[in-house]
Amino acid sequence: MVLKPFYRRTLYYETDKMGIVHHSNYLRWLEEARLDFLEQVGFPYDEMEKDGIMIPVLSSMCQYKHAVRFNETVCIKMHLEEFNGLKFRISYVVTDKDTDEIRLIAETAHFFVDSNLKPIRIKKIKPDIYDCFNSAVGKDLYNE
Amino acid sequence: MVLKPFYRRTLYYETDKMGIVHHSNYLRWLEEARLDFLEQVGFPYDEMEKDGIMIPVLSSMCQYKHAVRFNETVCIKMHLEEFNGLKFRISYVVTDKDTDEIRLIAETAHFFVDSNLKPIRIKKIKPDIYDCFNSAVGKDLYNE
Amino acid sequence: MVLKPFYRRTLYYETDKMGIVHHSNYLRWLEEARLDFLEQVGFPYDEMEKDGIMIPVLSSMCQYKHAVRFNETVCIKMHLEEFNGLKFRISYVVTDKDTDEIRLIAETAHFFVDSNLKPIRIKKIKPDIYDCFNSAVGKDLYNE
Amino acid sequence: MVLKPFYRRTLYYETDKMGIVHHSNYLRWLEEARLDFLEQVGFPYDEMEKDGIMIPVLSSMCQYKHAVRFNETVCIKMHLEEFNGLKFRISYVVTDKDTDEIRLIAETAHFFVDSNLKPIRIKKIKPDIYDCFNSAVGKDLYNE
Repeated sequence: MVLKPFYRRTLYYETDKMGIVHHSNYLRWLEEARLDFLEQVGFPYDEMEKDGIMIPVLSSMCQYKHAVRFNETVCIKMHLEEFNGLKFRISYVVTDKDTDEIRLIAETAHFFVDSNLKPIRIKKIKPDIYDCFNSAVGKDLYNE
Repeated sequence: MVLKPFYRRTLYYETDKMGIVHHSNYLRWLEEARLDFLEQVGFPYDEMEKDGIMIPVLSSMCQYKHAVRFNETVCIKMHLEEFNGLKFRISYVVTDKDTDEIRLIAETAHFFVDSNLKPIRIKKIKPDIYDCFNSAVGKDLYNE
Repeated sequence: MVLKPFYRRTLYYETDKMGIVHHSNYLRWLEEARLDFLEQVGFPYDEMEKDGIMIPVLSSMCQYKHAVRFNETVCIKMHLEEFNGLKFRISYVVTDKDTDEIRLIAETAHFFVDSNLKPIRIKKIKPDIYDCFNSAVGKDLYNE
Repeated sequence: MVLKPFYRRTLYYETDKMGIVHHSNYLRWLEEARLDFLEQVGFPYDEMEKDGIMIPVLSSMCQYKHAVRFNETVCIKMHLEEFNGLKFRISYVVTDKDTDEIRLIAETAHFFVDSNLKPIRIKKIKPDIYDCFNSAVGKDLYNE
């Protein structure tokens, strides 16, 4: 598994009157990066939802290191820190595409639920998703 | 039926780097004003949805007369221009609460649908909603 | 001038509990398409802003023909309907990338302002932008 | 100093297709609660900005305990955990207005900057803001 990083350019309406990206938008970018990850590993989120599986957010943590401005592009790389079949935790490093300077350090935790928002053991329902997450834990996803 | 106008203060994250409210947010304010109207006339939208009735937007038209800034409060008054049991059309005048200057002139059109997004005749399903809309058409809703 | 259409995939957070894209987001997609147009014709908006030129929205009109869902990709093509050196008007056709079905028909009007939001004649300040807009009026921008 | 808690009702467009509030919006609600706090203690944020003082976010942490749905109203209470004249840290407890059940536990850290985003010592520039924050640290702000 070798992933491509997720690139995201700031949209105009994501800035606020301070002239920088409003901090709430970074959580949206991280979600985009997660969905891109799921697509790259072969489990697009729209298909998971059709199968009745959803992945809500349990917690988030962001350290805003440096403001991102309009039209700047960031590179988001993620790392699967923990996974136990029920929950998982991802860390993110968000850097400027051109300068490599860090913009954001973040972490989110998630669990698998069914369409009634009840927690599920993914190994029973979708063993291939379990295997994929299990093999990704602790690995550098962007180099072999 | 005498309505209270809907007041809305600009939130910080609704501004963009131009220092004014991003124009996409006004459509959100109009939606808030519509839901406030439904609540004032006794048909809160969350209960309508539980009954399987939804009211999507068919079209919208906005004339942005004057920028709204952070912390300014606007007053939204609406007028039910047309209603035929299937569709309705609302016009809005958005003014500054303090100066009465016009900020936005707008119009939205809607129809009633069931939970499969199929159009419905509201008179058959909810005659009291039909009667309410019918009695409001063309009236000044804010004065007897 | 031969433009590439602007493609945009629905993001998860752009949906609402109706399961479809919230209608306010389309105005944001149109803005993205406009900024992509400016970039393609050689006048990126961030550079225009650095030169003290901004392009606020005067009015918008949207006809929501068919709901767009999560993960669907739309194709946005625009047409410069009018331009007089002070103001311009753009129409948009938004179609599904895969089926070519129409999702949205829209129109926005704009004017050029300086950093104090005062209208400017673009011909005097930036003749090359004037020439570009002038040559694009009424043309099919996606075929020679 | 006895504050009123900040109440916030879910808006329709804040939900996503999961039928619950998209988690990114909670950071926006916390910002609203902070600006309400500043207003209650006599330092409205729009006036601070006119004086060239801004308060960016350094970090955020959210534990999403229970999903919030459309039309539910939450109560946000904050606690000033730390303040040293340069930075401060706030914790939040977000509960359902009707049931008192916890929805969200959160924390944000901030610093004071000037209009060039350079850190400032608030005691030198605005001693009354310094005194206010200093007297609020560690206190229960909602009871004498």
